[in-house]
Amino acid sequence: MEFKISKELIQELEQLIQNKNDQQLEVLLNDMHHADIAEILDELDFDEATYIFKVLDSEKTAEILLELEDDLRENILSRLSPKEIAEELDELETNDAADIIGELSKEKKEEVISELQDVEHAKDIVDLLRYKEDTAGGLMHKELVKVNENWTVFTCIKEMRIQAENISRVHSIYVVDDENKLLGRLSLKDLLTTSTKTPISEVYIKKLNSVMVDTEDVEVARIMQKYDLEAIPVTDELGRLVGRITIDDIVDVIKDEAEKDYQLAAGITNDVESSDTVLELMKARLPWLLIGMVIEIIASKVLEGNQTSVQQYFTLMIFVPLLSATAGNIGVQASAIVVQGLANGTLKQYSRQYLSKELSVALISGTIISLFLFLYHSLMYQQYLVGFAISISMLVVILFAATLGVLVPLFLHKKKIDPAIATGPFITTTNDVFGIMIYFWIARLILGY
Amino acid sequence: MEFKISKELIQELEQLIQNKNDQQLEVLLNDMHHADIAEILDELDFDEATYIFKVLDSEKTAEILLELEDDLRENILSRLSPKEIAEELDELETNDAADIIGELSKEKKEEVISELQDVEHAKDIVDLLRYKEDTAGGLMHKELVKVNENWTVFTCIKEMRIQAENISRVHSIYVVDDENKLLGRLSLKDLLTTSTKTPISEVYIKKLNSVMVDTEDVEVARIMQKYDLEAIPVTDELGRLVGRITIDDIVDVIKDEAEKDYQLAAGITNDVESSDTVLELMKARLPWLLIGMVIEIIASKVLEGNQTSVQQYFTLMIFVPLLSATAGNIGVQASAIVVQGLANGTLKQYSRQYLSKELSVALISGTIISLFLFLYHSLMYQQYLVGFAISISMLVVILFAATLGVLVPLFLHKKKIDPAIATGPFITTTNDVFGIMIYFWIARLILGY
Repeated sequence: MEFKISKELIQELEQLIQNKNDQQLEVLLNDMHHADIAEILDELDFDEATYIFKVLDSEKTAEILLELEDDLRENILSRLSPKEIAEELDELETNDAADIIGELSKEKKEEVISELQDVEHAKDIVDLLRYKEDTAGGLMHKELVKVNENWTVFTCIKEMRIQAENISRVHSIYVVDDENKLLGRLSLKDLLTTSTKTPISEVYIKKLNSVMVDTEDVEVARIMQKYDLEAIPVTDELGRLVGRITIDDIVDVIKDEAEKDYQLAAGITNDVESSDTVLELMKARLPWLLIGMVIEIIASKVLEGNQTSVQQYFTLMIFVPLLSATAGNIGVQASAIVVQGLANGTLKQYSRQYLSKELSVALISGTIISLFLFLYHSLMYQQYLVGFAISISMLVVILFAATLGVLVPLFLHKKKIDPAIATGPFITTTNDVFGIMIYFWIARLILGY
Repeated sequence: MEFKISKELIQELEQLIQNKNDQQLEVLLNDMHHADIAEILDELDFDEATYIFKVLDSEKTAEILLELEDDLRENILSRLSPKEIAEELDELETNDAADIIGELSKEKKEEVISELQDVEHAKDIVDLLRYKEDTAGGLMHKELVKVNENWTVFTCIKEMRIQAENISRVHSIYVVDDENKLLGRLSLKDLLTTSTKTPISEVYIKKLNSVMVDTEDVEVARIMQKYDLEAIPVTDELGRLVGRITIDDIVDVIKDEAEKDYQLAAGITNDVESSDTVLELMKARLPWLLIGMVIEIIASKVLEGNQTSVQQYFTLMIFVPLLSATAGNIGVQASAIVVQGLANGTLKQYSRQYLSKELSVALISGTIISLFLFLYHSLMYQQYLVGFAISISMLVVILFAATLGVLVPLFLHKKKIDPAIATGPFITTTNDVFGIMIYFWIARLILGY
């Protein structure tokens, strides 16, 4: 039952654009979902996409605009006049409109705002622009259904019909006092089953979760997930109802948060995408590469200091990549579980119990790996003492890496730094340096050179 | 406005449990949200948690059960009789009840099902147990509001009141024919504004997204996100309406999917948590450690083959960790962006344009790193030709790692293997082997030994 773009469709559209057959284009596209049209536009080149964009009416294009990939949206917006952009924005919910305005240059921003037709809408949008993107204020919509505690169910239903006109999903009905202070909520279900003369103050539910405008977006996501909420009202410092956040706004926050961890683990700082420019990709990646390089230069100094032992026991040297890879792998595994535990709330702070569990895992894994390595080395090189030295060092390094893997993210979390950094290049390379130091130190103890 | 557990509260509860003061416990806990009580129980020991669980009534404990951490839930369930478990399940929505039954042993499962009081409910639960966990059937709830196309708006509202009793959120009202075939939907808003005598067949919306019972959960998530849906109906092979999936069920799928990528990148196969046992953690982690070890043993053979050159040019050797770390870092960065591009749909298949963009990033980053390395080496060791050989090799290895970083996830994706594996230990260690080979090969070419 789902739409799939076909090559034939793209070709047909390109043909129609070439022939400037606007009427046929409209017939073909008007029945499609805006998300599907956006997908099609992403497949066309900028000129073609802009052409189609101008053929369709603004009710449709406004929604399409939201779904486009960043670079195409930017390109199309740059080809529209402030008045044309304002027409698009008049069709959108306040929050979406504010997001698009946020992408414009400062100058164009003001021109667009002055062209907005619906004054109330414009006021709401300008209101929203004040809030930081990663707060409840930046997430919320102005559109919501609210009723006064002094109304009856009858007035309430009448007013709701008017308010609901502009809202795609009603969710909860919020109850406020004359000052617009949030008091509670009414459920649609209750409304369906209560006599129309009952005053609202008698039927509304007083218990209600809400967040403040400056609550962080990840915190809002956490609360909504914990209490399984589909919408949450947002209040200002005086407890007045200023907006509402719905679960679909939160889905993106949750996704972004999980993706951020993944990117940090991969050594990518800013939120980049495959469609970003070379410069943007460089900016997000080069810092970690350079940090990694500087740390590994320290590793090279450690190796240099062990030159004599390496020349005497060459097999010590050839297992250095194995050593650092294994230490890195076990360290990252340990950190990743802690990072997710912190994110889920299953792990809250340092726990001796958890550290000893991790050390058990490391001890068992390490013993298996070391034993295997000892057997391999004995078989290949017949230098049993060297093999013994390598295996024991490997075990100690594994235990060390696991300990660091647990402690570093917990420490970062305590210092309010994103613990996911601990699964990235910084820690793996630092692990290398310590690992190589410990390895040669123990080898020297055992081999006595 | 949010609940926070305090040490005092925990102490107070432990005191009340010791004194068996059930009444006071009830007073204290009955007003709390079930998610908060679950959080408290997770902080107590098993005996205390079970005690509280038995004090509270089943309407509350059923919801709490869903929110508990896995090991505590398992423990509590093991202390309840089949009849007691059935009482809990009678309070839950079908899907949640089926999830809990799914966690029981086969024997206990049957006993619990035979103890369920509500026959309709039991039938629905047994129905749901047939579907695989990661399909639409495994995600869906049986609870939904549906009306017959032949009813009037009046009958419809009457019937809805009855149906809505058992449903926490109405979302859409589905319209079916006499055969239970899904025809379309009615919006609550439309219902509020239509005359009560109108037949449903005249007002319902025929266009409707739906999924089949065997659609994969990630596909359901993708569709719901793309079309911004809060609920989607599920049909069987004959197009009959069998269930409904709501956005909150999907939030977990989205989160799990993103977390799975992160775990794969960290070398963790199964979905494990910090609260899992040592054995479970081992099972998820040891395979990657062993694979990494075997691959790095190949690296040791490559190094061994270059023993003579290393003894002649020792600085070649000491930069091996730097080489493998940098190649690993840039490879993982490249892969991570491809993996996310594939997940978001911004990247669909191999594109020469994208590969050349990635190679530009690698070329610029690589040049910066190589230049820096040449200067450092020249300053430290004054062996300009060796420094030159090291820097050039480094640059080539970086370009190679970036190419592999783009191609491997795309290849895995094409072969229907999760591309996130490409950001994990398998690729980083393979990169090491190739990197070291290329490095010594180029060094030999330049130094001519």
